[in-house]
Amino acid sequence: MNVLDFLITPAEACKRTGPHDQIVFSSRVRLARNLKGLPFPGHAKKADRLKAFEALMPAVAGLPQMGEAPFAEAMDKLSAMDKQLLVERHLISREHAAKNAGSGFVLNQEETVCVMVNEEDHLRMQALRPGLQLKQAWLAIDAVDSSLQERVEVAYAERYGFLTACPTNLGTGIRVSAMLHLPGLVLAEQINQIIQAVNKLGLAVRGLYGEGTEALGNIFQVSNQMTLGESESDIVERLNKVLLQIIEHEENARLKQVAEKPKVVFNHIGRAYGVLSQSHSISSKETMNLLSLLRLGVDLGMFGPTPKSLVDELFLCSQPAHLQIGHPEKLDAEARDAFRADLLRQRMKAVPGPDHTKVASKPE
Amino acid sequence: MNVLDFLITPAEACKRTGPHDQIVFSSRVRLARNLKGLPFPGHAKKADRLKAFEALMPAVAGLPQMGEAPFAEAMDKLSAMDKQLLVERHLISREHAAKNAGSGFVLNQEETVCVMVNEEDHLRMQALRPGLQLKQAWLAIDAVDSSLQERVEVAYAERYGFLTACPTNLGTGIRVSAMLHLPGLVLAEQINQIIQAVNKLGLAVRGLYGEGTEALGNIFQVSNQMTLGESESDIVERLNKVLLQIIEHEENARLKQVAEKPKVVFNHIGRAYGVLSQSHSISSKETMNLLSLLRLGVDLGMFGPTPKSLVDELFLCSQPAHLQIGHPEKLDAEARDAFRADLLRQRMKAVPGPDHTKVASKPE
Repeated sequence: MNVLDFLITPAEACKRTGPHDQIVFSSRVRLARNLKGLPFPGHAKKADRLKAFEALMPAVAGLPQMGEAPFAEAMDKLSAMDKQLLVERHLISREHAAKNAGSGFVLNQEETVCVMVNEEDHLRMQALRPGLQLKQAWLAIDAVDSSLQERVEVAYAERYGFLTACPTNLGTGIRVSAMLHLPGLVLAEQINQIIQAVNKLGLAVRGLYGEGTEALGNIFQVSNQMTLGESESDIVERLNKVLLQIIEHEENARLKQVAEKPKVVFNHIGRAYGVLSQSHSISSKETMNLLSLLRLGVDLGMFGPTPKSLVDELFLCSQPAHLQIGHPEKLDAEARDAFRADLLRQRMKAVPGPDHTKVASKPE
Repeated sequence: MNVLDFLITPAEACKRTGPHDQIVFSSRVRLARNLKGLPFPGHAKKADRLKAFEALMPAVAGLPQMGEAPFAEAMDKLSAMDKQLLVERHLISREHAAKNAGSGFVLNQEETVCVMVNEEDHLRMQALRPGLQLKQAWLAIDAVDSSLQERVEVAYAERYGFLTACPTNLGTGIRVSAMLHLPGLVLAEQINQIIQAVNKLGLAVRGLYGEGTEALGNIFQVSNQMTLGESESDIVERLNKVLLQIIEHEENARLKQVAEKPKVVFNHIGRAYGVLSQSHSISSKETMNLLSLLRLGVDLGMFGPTPKSLVDELFLCSQPAHLQIGHPEKLDAEARDAFRADLLRQRMKAVPGPDHTKVASKPE
């Protein structure tokens, strides 16, 4: 099956809303699980990996939580572009995109539950929600996990909990995370302080594509580090509390910047609008950073009725594999930068010029 | 008298046209002269400098070529802002702006003839014309010189010609120059080659404000170096020929860039338009460089009926002293950058968005 035909359109995906979605792009909870009696994927011989693959792909695809006709495919059946599309949608990890025979991927039609088979563990199952909905995501993936454990026997030790390939996942195997848009804290130069404070609480802050990646577009992923010694719902609850604090800091930083340095803020946003609307060549990185400022302007009310979903759609569509859609031959970087600019110029026509007089100048 | 009240408005000044004014902003010829029997200003005691000043100011202001009611004032009667305004209009040198008692300045109402008294020489007289009009400027300043020499006796030696404070001006005392806008050669990375070739012909290439200044806004001043051993009309004729060649190179460079790298050209011009229209803080330097690209876009037809005079006016009005007009207290750099951006946003509303499809894509 073709990934592109299965995926919902970027426009549709970006229209989804959730609590605090001015700042929290998405919430996700993933669980790491392994089959009992089979070596972890990284240590398994091909035959064992295939055994896991063959047991798990139909079991996962048949779960009631995956709904009707989920997408289920072996990684070697997917083109490089299909894999890249899934990475850009945050449905698979970059590591999983590099996998071939013996690894697989299952996704429900709503794109709210996805499962990687034979990534680092036999199973990496995640539930996604727009905005701040950690608990909802946890309940969703917990249901998937319960159903699954009725069908297959997973590796579990009374003393440790769920066994995982890497000890950092041992115990609950849970990784709870949210993708946060923090341009206010970046402009106010408070972001490093916040990151350090969050790190001290035992939480990790990462870039757009997870571990070891850059915080393009002022987007940061915050997640728990520890998976042992706390219950899943405690972990979810604790992260939720920290996220609510970060949201408050971000809101305050925005109000403070607008109150104290309005021209600096309007200058950044105005220039971002100008360049996004008028360039004929633009890199992915510059685009992300300018779209972040545009999104901030939309949040501040500078772009009238422009929906934030339009900006979010541009975030998605301006990434390499999404740009490649509709082009039979592979675009090189130069051609992509030109197509990206063409797309942005075209789409930005729907966005009226910024009006800084619409911004409330004082904290409410 | 107030300089500001005397000067024609930037809009009026920029509406003037001349041959090749897509590339040649202006032509000028200046003559250096000194009074016989008095030491050069740099070596003169105060009494001698005042003697020269008192003899020359009325003599110059009374020349028929200065027309009715010229502006004539001692430098110590001008405010720092007035002096800076005159520098930005290229009517006096930066060095002359630093002068006080004993130095003076005379300007006709049309702003086509201006005379500095007690700059490096007793007299620095120049005629200005829009576009490429070296001969016309020469004839104009030659008439001023002839009239003047009927009134005062200048230092002249049969063997050397006119005597000047610096030997680089000895003989004819003439400096013929043109202000060229060369964004095509800069984009094509051919500008250094051209500068070297022009230097080899014994001509000088300088930045926007003359000797030792940067070529902001892709604007270059080309002038003769030698003032001895050639007649004035030969010097004018020789520079004119070289300028016609540079113009041809610039025209070819523009056509070639548009034909071979249209996206690069449109990208530069589009982004310049975007930033000039949307910034809330912008430095003088960035403004000049972006206005250069905007002017190139206007020349290429990308901005429909936008007159180049509008861009030229913005070049003038976005400079510090012109920005200061209407503000009683002195603006600091930060406030100026903000006012500059406000002015540009306001004025750019009259410029329609760039349309690259209007550019002829092949050399004609």
